[in-house]
Amino acid sequence: MRIAVDVMGGDHGCGVVIEGARRALKEDRKISTLYLVGNKSEIHAALPRRGFRDHRVRVIHAGEVLTMEDKPVAAVRRKKDCSIVRAIELVREGKADALISLGNTGGIFAAATLKLGRIAGVDRGGIAAFIPREEHEFVLLDAGANIECKPLHLAHYAVMGSIYSREILGRKSPRVGILSIGTEDSKGNELTLEAFRLCKQLDINFIGNVEGHDLFRDHVDVVICDGFVGNIVLKTCESLALAMFSMLKHELTANPRRQLGALLAQNAFRAIRRRMDPEVYGGAPLLGFNGTVFKAHGSARERAIANAIRVVTENLQHQVNQLIAQEITRANERLACIEPVAAPALSPD
Amino acid sequence: MRIAVDVMGGDHGCGVVIEGARRALKEDRKISTLYLVGNKSEIHAALPRRGFRDHRVRVIHAGEVLTMEDKPVAAVRRKKDCSIVRAIELVREGKADALISLGNTGGIFAAATLKLGRIAGVDRGGIAAFIPREEHEFVLLDAGANIECKPLHLAHYAVMGSIYSREILGRKSPRVGILSIGTEDSKGNELTLEAFRLCKQLDINFIGNVEGHDLFRDHVDVVICDGFVGNIVLKTCESLALAMFSMLKHELTANPRRQLGALLAQNAFRAIRRRMDPEVYGGAPLLGFNGTVFKAHGSARERAIANAIRVVTENLQHQVNQLIAQEITRANERLACIEPVAAPALSPD
Repeated sequence: MRIAVDVMGGDHGCGVVIEGARRALKEDRKISTLYLVGNKSEIHAALPRRGFRDHRVRVIHAGEVLTMEDKPVAAVRRKKDCSIVRAIELVREGKADALISLGNTGGIFAAATLKLGRIAGVDRGGIAAFIPREEHEFVLLDAGANIECKPLHLAHYAVMGSIYSREILGRKSPRVGILSIGTEDSKGNELTLEAFRLCKQLDINFIGNVEGHDLFRDHVDVVICDGFVGNIVLKTCESLALAMFSMLKHELTANPRRQLGALLAQNAFRAIRRRMDPEVYGGAPLLGFNGTVFKAHGSARERAIANAIRVVTENLQHQVNQLIAQEITRANERLACIEPVAAPALSPD
Repeated sequence: MRIAVDVMGGDHGCGVVIEGARRALKEDRKISTLYLVGNKSEIHAALPRRGFRDHRVRVIHAGEVLTMEDKPVAAVRRKKDCSIVRAIELVREGKADALISLGNTGGIFAAATLKLGRIAGVDRGGIAAFIPREEHEFVLLDAGANIECKPLHLAHYAVMGSIYSREILGRKSPRVGILSIGTEDSKGNELTLEAFRLCKQLDINFIGNVEGHDLFRDHVDVVICDGFVGNIVLKTCESLALAMFSMLKHELTANPRRQLGALLAQNAFRAIRRRMDPEVYGGAPLLGFNGTVFKAHGSARERAIANAIRVVTENLQHQVNQLIAQEITRANERLACIEPVAAPALSPD
């Protein structure tokens, strides 16, 4: 397996990314080539400092970086020498099987769309976030790539999310739900009501609508929504979890008695932190493209990068993209048989 | 102040609601009349059992109840003798100043829309949920009433939410933000981008877009969104907070050492529970109607009901509806001066 890592664009500089890549290489002998894509001099400055000499490493220079301020589509077209474009070209040219980037999500999405293109039959790519939960994580798709969704996009997300949950998270028959405002079939907006109708026709374990209350009960494995809702849900969960940890810390250090209690019970807090740890997956895959593309957290550190590389290798081993191609073709055949209807009338319940 | 309480439709039966009302009456001598609206025999059966005799209490019989299965608009029209309709009629006829119901949100919203009508100039009513946070709570509006929003609705929510935060939560100059997928002005969907343009013209402390990450930092006081997104955010937060408490409980009882630690630190957990307690406000007001309407949690118990009645009396004392009428008129004058533009082009960032 040959993996390209865009080492630029992370919050902690390229040294951290390179160290994460070193750990992944050390653990995984199936990786035959690892491309470090970015500013050559920065990479070389980071390399010897970290004592990282592995014959499988190739450094690919990129003179530019996509920034958070760049307008993705325009920037991908204009900045031909930026690290994400160079990394994606390695995949397009068949030199790499997968790429990982910590940069601007919109930029990665735009580069994947423009340079790799979508798997035949897939109408729109999406980001599949893993959200931790007490029992096991669920997949949220789309987590922020596709802001103006059509019903067919959601149906395709249902298929792709189901494959991902099955192959990477090991759920046998992943329960797929559409995120809505109530569990009744009639609840939702124009988009979700029509997507509901499409998903019912698919060869997946579609459980209908789910609402916010269902997410953190072990009730659904794949949660489908448009990228606007998904992005807000993902960030709201991150924000609330952090706030609760912060409140806990604040309260537990308020006096010596509580401090002693916290000390005695510290393994309990560690267990929860471990379970809610976003670094376990290191980021989120972009599904639906001709190539394996993974967005690592901008704030990812060494362990998160190593984990991101591990997830990507699992993606390749399980041939997720080939499965998407097959199952989307089958889904489209089923969807082609559905009568189009006018948008259903909405009631305010 | 005269308050109508629809005692039907709660999860725990009307006895709990009546007991909550008794507590509120006992604490608040400014309440001159309290209507208990619902099945007369059930109410009378509950009354003596609870030792509740107050000359301010009036029982109003209603032969029907709106259920969760009812289609709100149709049911409000058809079930003329249901408790929410009877309670709302007391307000419409000027016999009560405000009403509280634990029933079906859609039903209350439909009844308020059909029977009370909206305050002049208000384009659509909304539900303002209070969401607890470490420092102080924020208002989320709309929390699930108005699923298919127009930009003007969001602008009106911004005005009404600002009034609510100022008058009821005591924020001096409430920071109002539109919930979006990033804080940059250009981030959002068609609805939020146009609402952004409108909100900039308003005489409120509009801070622009906020994202999920901002919600639980002390960064914004009033979060504006359509009812689809708001309902999902509200329920997701409730679900995640509960899940984290449940994890905590599970981990803290795993062995005797942790149990001892938890015992020593128990006041820390109590403080957090208290701060995250949804019963403090007992529910959420419906804003924008000709009358004060409050949706209590279906699961509300005595204390939550008493708190809901307290919030409603504050609403009346602060003349929230009169302020809404004034400030919406002013807002509409400002908005009338804005040039209409075509929907802005969207980029995938």
